Amino acid sequence: MYGLIGRMLAQPGKRDALRDIMLEGMAGAPMPGCISYVVAEDPAEEDALWITEVWDSAESHRGSLQLESVQATIARARPLIAGMDNRTETRPVGGVGL
Amino acid sequence: MYGLIGRMLAQPGKRDALRDIMLEGMAGAPMPGCISYVVAEDPAEEDALWITEVWDSAESHRGSLQLESVQATIARARPLIAGMDNRTETRPVGGVGL
Repeated sequence: MYGLIGRMLAQPGKRDALRDIMLEGMAGAPMPGCISYVVAEDPAEEDALWITEVWDSAESHRGSLQLESVQATIARARPLIAGMDNRTETRPVGGVGL
Repeated sequence: MYGLIGRMLAQPGKRDALRDIMLEGMAGAPMPGCISYVVAEDPAEEDALWITEVWDSAESHRGSLQLESVQATIARARPLIAGMDNRTETRPVGGVGL
Protein backbone atom coordinates (compact mmCIF):
# COMPACT_ATOMS: atom_id res chain seq x y z
CA MET A 1 0.00 0.00 0.00
CA TYR A 2 0.98 3.63 -0.48
CA GLY A 3 0.04 6.45 1.88
CA LEU A 4 0.18 10.20 2.04
CA ILE A 5 -0.23 12.56 4.97
CA GLY A 6 -0.26 16.29 4.34
CA ARG A 7 -1.76 19.59 5.28
CA MET A 8 -3.52 21.87 2.82
CA LEU A 9 -3.65 25.56 3.65
CA ALA A 10 -6.63 27.52 2.36
CA GLN A 11 -6.62 31.18 1.48
CA PRO A 12 -7.71 33.14 4.57
CA GLY A 13 -11.34 32.39 5.40
CA LYS A 14 -11.73 29.84 2.58
CA ARG A 15 -11.32 26.56 4.45
CA ASP A 16 -15.01 25.69 4.48
CA ALA A 17 -15.31 26.33 0.76
CA LEU A 18 -12.17 24.29 0.03
CA ARG A 19 -13.37 21.45 2.26
CA ASP A 20 -16.70 21.32 0.44
CA ILE A 21 -15.02 21.24 -2.98
CA MET A 22 -12.81 18.34 -1.84
CA LEU A 23 -15.75 16.36 -0.45
CA GLU A 24 -17.98 17.02 -3.45
CA GLY A 25 -15.15 15.95 -5.76
CA MET A 26 -14.80 12.61 -4.00
CA ALA A 27 -18.54 12.02 -3.91
CA GLY A 28 -18.73 12.56 -7.66
CA ALA A 29 -16.74 9.65 -9.03
CA PRO A 30 -14.80 6.69 -7.61
CA MET A 31 -10.99 6.76 -7.60
CA PRO A 32 -9.67 3.29 -8.52
CA GLY A 33 -7.27 1.94 -5.91
CA CYS A 34 -8.22 4.52 -3.28
CA ILE A 35 -8.73 2.68 0.02
CA SER A 36 -9.03 5.67 2.33
CA TYR A 37 -9.04 9.44 1.82
CA VAL A 38 -9.89 11.46 4.91
CA VAL A 39 -10.42 15.21 4.89
CA ALA A 40 -10.08 16.70 8.38
CA GLU A 41 -10.10 20.20 9.81
CA ASP A 42 -7.15 21.31 11.91
CA PRO A 43 -8.77 22.50 15.16
CA ALA A 44 -5.69 24.58 15.99
CA GLU A 45 -5.38 26.47 12.68
CA GLU A 46 -8.48 27.88 11.10
CA ASP A 47 -7.30 27.76 7.49
CA ALA A 48 -5.79 24.26 7.51
CA LEU A 49 -7.09 20.87 6.38
CA TRP A 50 -5.32 17.56 6.99
CA ILE A 51 -5.52 15.04 4.16
CA THR A 52 -4.62 11.41 4.91
CA GLU A 53 -4.69 8.89 2.06
CA VAL A 54 -4.23 5.15 1.60
CA TRP A 55 -3.92 3.72 -1.92
CA ASP A 56 -3.30 0.17 -3.08
CA SER A 57 -0.18 1.43 -4.87
CA ALA A 58 1.71 4.61 -5.74
CA GLU A 59 0.67 3.96 -9.35
CA SER A 60 -3.02 4.19 -8.43
CA HIS A 61 -2.36 7.48 -6.69
CA ARG A 62 -0.49 8.85 -9.68
CA GLY A 63 -3.18 7.59 -12.02
CA SER A 64 -5.91 9.33 -10.01
CA LEU A 65 -4.38 12.69 -10.85
CA GLN A 66 -5.24 12.05 -14.50
CA LEU A 67 -8.92 11.28 -13.86
CA GLU A 68 -11.26 13.82 -15.36
CA SER A 69 -13.19 14.13 -12.09
CA VAL A 70 -10.01 14.75 -10.09
CA GLN A 71 -8.72 17.28 -12.58
CA ALA A 72 -12.04 19.13 -12.35
CA THR A 73 -11.76 19.17 -8.55
CA ILE A 74 -8.18 20.42 -8.70
CA ALA A 75 -9.24 23.21 -11.06
CA ARG A 76 -12.00 24.29 -8.67
CA ALA A 77 -9.82 23.99 -5.57
CA ARG A 78 -6.62 25.62 -6.82
CA PRO A 79 -7.71 29.27 -6.43
CA LEU A 80 -8.56 28.57 -2.77
CA ILE A 81 -5.27 26.85 -1.88
CA ALA A 82 -2.53 28.98 -0.31
CA GLY A 83 -0.07 26.11 0.06
CA MET A 84 0.75 22.67 1.39
CA ASP A 85 2.98 21.60 4.26
CA ASN A 86 3.79 18.57 6.42
CA ARG A 87 3.76 16.28 3.37
CA THR A 88 4.90 12.74 4.15
CA GLU A 89 4.77 9.55 2.14
CA THR A 90 4.03 6.40 4.13
CA ARG A 91 3.84 2.63 3.63
CA PRO A 92 0.58 1.49 5.29
CA VAL A 93 0.80 -2.06 6.61
CA GLY A 94 -2.59 -2.66 8.20
CA GLY A 95 -5.10 -1.63 10.78
CA VAL A 96 -8.80 -0.94 11.10
CA GLY A 97 -10.94 0.14 8.15
CA LEU A 98 -8.63 -0.78 5.29
CA MET B 1 -15.63 12.76 14.35
CA TYR B 2 -12.29 12.92 16.13
CA GLY B 3 -8.92 12.23 14.53
CA LEU B 4 -5.32 11.75 15.53
CA ILE B 5 -2.17 11.81 13.44
CA GLY B 6 1.13 10.96 15.06
CA ARG B 7 4.43 9.23 14.68
CA MET B 8 5.65 6.48 16.96
CA LEU B 9 9.40 5.96 17.25
CA ALA B 10 10.59 2.46 17.99
CA GLN B 11 13.74 1.59 19.86
CA PRO B 12 16.53 1.09 17.30
CA GLY B 13 15.84 -1.95 15.12
CA LYS B 14 12.50 -2.70 16.80
CA ARG B 15 10.04 -1.19 14.30
CA ASP B 16 8.97 -4.51 12.81
CA ALA B 17 8.31 -5.98 16.25
CA LEU B 18 6.38 -2.88 17.34
CA ARG B 19 4.36 -2.88 14.11
CA ASP B 20 3.40 -6.51 14.62
CA ILE B 21 2.30 -5.90 18.21
CA MET B 22 0.12 -2.99 17.08
CA LEU B 23 -1.49 -5.02 14.29
CA GLU B 24 -2.03 -8.09 16.45
CA GLY B 25 -3.59 -5.93 19.12
CA MET B 26 -6.13 -4.50 16.71
CA ALA B 27 -6.92 -7.89 15.22
CA GLY B 28 -7.67 -9.26 18.66
CA ALA B 29 -10.71 -7.27 19.73
CA PRO B 30 -12.89 -4.54 18.24
CA MET B 31 -12.56 -0.96 19.52
CA PRO B 32 -16.02 0.62 19.76
CA GLY B 33 -16.27 3.87 17.81
CA CYS B 34 -13.04 3.29 15.89
CA ILE B 35 -13.72 4.07 12.22
CA SER B 36 -10.16 3.96 10.92
CA TYR B 37 -6.78 3.15 12.46
CA VAL B 38 -3.92 2.89 9.99
CA VAL B 39 -0.43 1.73 10.91
CA ALA B 40 2.16 2.80 8.32
CA GLU B 41 5.91 2.60 8.04
CA ASP B 42 7.87 5.79 7.44
CA PRO B 43 9.93 5.00 4.34
CA ALA B 44 12.38 7.78 5.23
CA GLU B 45 13.08 6.80 8.83
CA GLU B 46 13.69 3.17 9.65
CA ASP B 47 12.45 3.25 13.25
CA ALA B 48 9.28 5.30 12.71
CA LEU B 49 5.62 4.32 12.31
CA TRP B 50 2.84 6.74 11.38
CA ILE B 51 -0.48 6.17 13.13
CA THR B 52 -3.59 7.86 11.72
CA GLU B 53 -6.89 7.40 13.53
CA VAL B 54 -10.54 8.34 13.01
CA TRP B 55 -13.03 7.87 15.85
CA ASP B 56 -16.71 8.73 16.06
CA SER B 57 -15.89 10.93 19.06
CA ALA B 58 -13.07 11.92 21.40
CA GLU B 59 -14.94 10.00 24.10
CA SER B 60 -14.67 6.75 22.13
CA HIS B 61 -10.95 7.30 21.74
CA ARG B 62 -10.51 7.96 25.45
CA GLY B 63 -12.68 4.97 26.27
CA SER B 64 -10.57 2.68 24.09
CA LEU B 65 -7.57 3.32 26.33
CA GLN B 66 -9.45 1.55 29.13
CA LEU B 67 -10.22 -1.60 27.10
CA GLU B 68 -8.48 -4.68 28.43
CA SER B 69 -7.25 -5.59 24.94
CA VAL B 70 -5.78 -2.12 24.38
CA GLN B 71 -4.12 -2.08 27.78
CA ALA B 72 -2.55 -5.45 27.00
CA THR B 73 -1.25 -4.10 23.70
CA ILE B 74 0.14 -0.98 25.38
CA ALA B 75 1.91 -3.14 27.96
CA ARG B 76 3.51 -5.25 25.21
CA ALA B 77 4.43 -2.24 23.06
CA ARG B 78 5.77 0.14 25.72
CA PRO B 79 9.25 -1.41 26.07
CA LEU B 80 9.74 -1.05 22.30
CA ILE B 81 8.66 2.61 22.06
CA ALA B 82 11.38 5.28 22.17
CA GLY B 83 8.98 8.20 21.83
CA MET B 84 6.23 9.95 19.89
CA ASP B 85 6.32 13.06 17.74
CA ASN B 86 4.25 14.99 15.20
CA ARG B 87 1.08 14.46 17.26
CA THR B 88 -1.90 16.37 15.91
CA GLU B 89 -5.58 16.21 16.75
CA THR B 90 -7.95 16.65 13.81
CA ARG B 91 -11.66 16.96 13.11
CA PRO B 92 -12.43 14.58 10.21
CA VAL B 93 -15.33 15.78 8.08
CA GLY B 94 -15.62 13.15 5.35
CA GLY B 95 -13.96 11.37 2.50
CA VAL B 96 -13.48 7.86 1.20
CA GLY B 97 -13.57 4.80 3.44
CA LEU B 98 -15.21 6.29 6.52
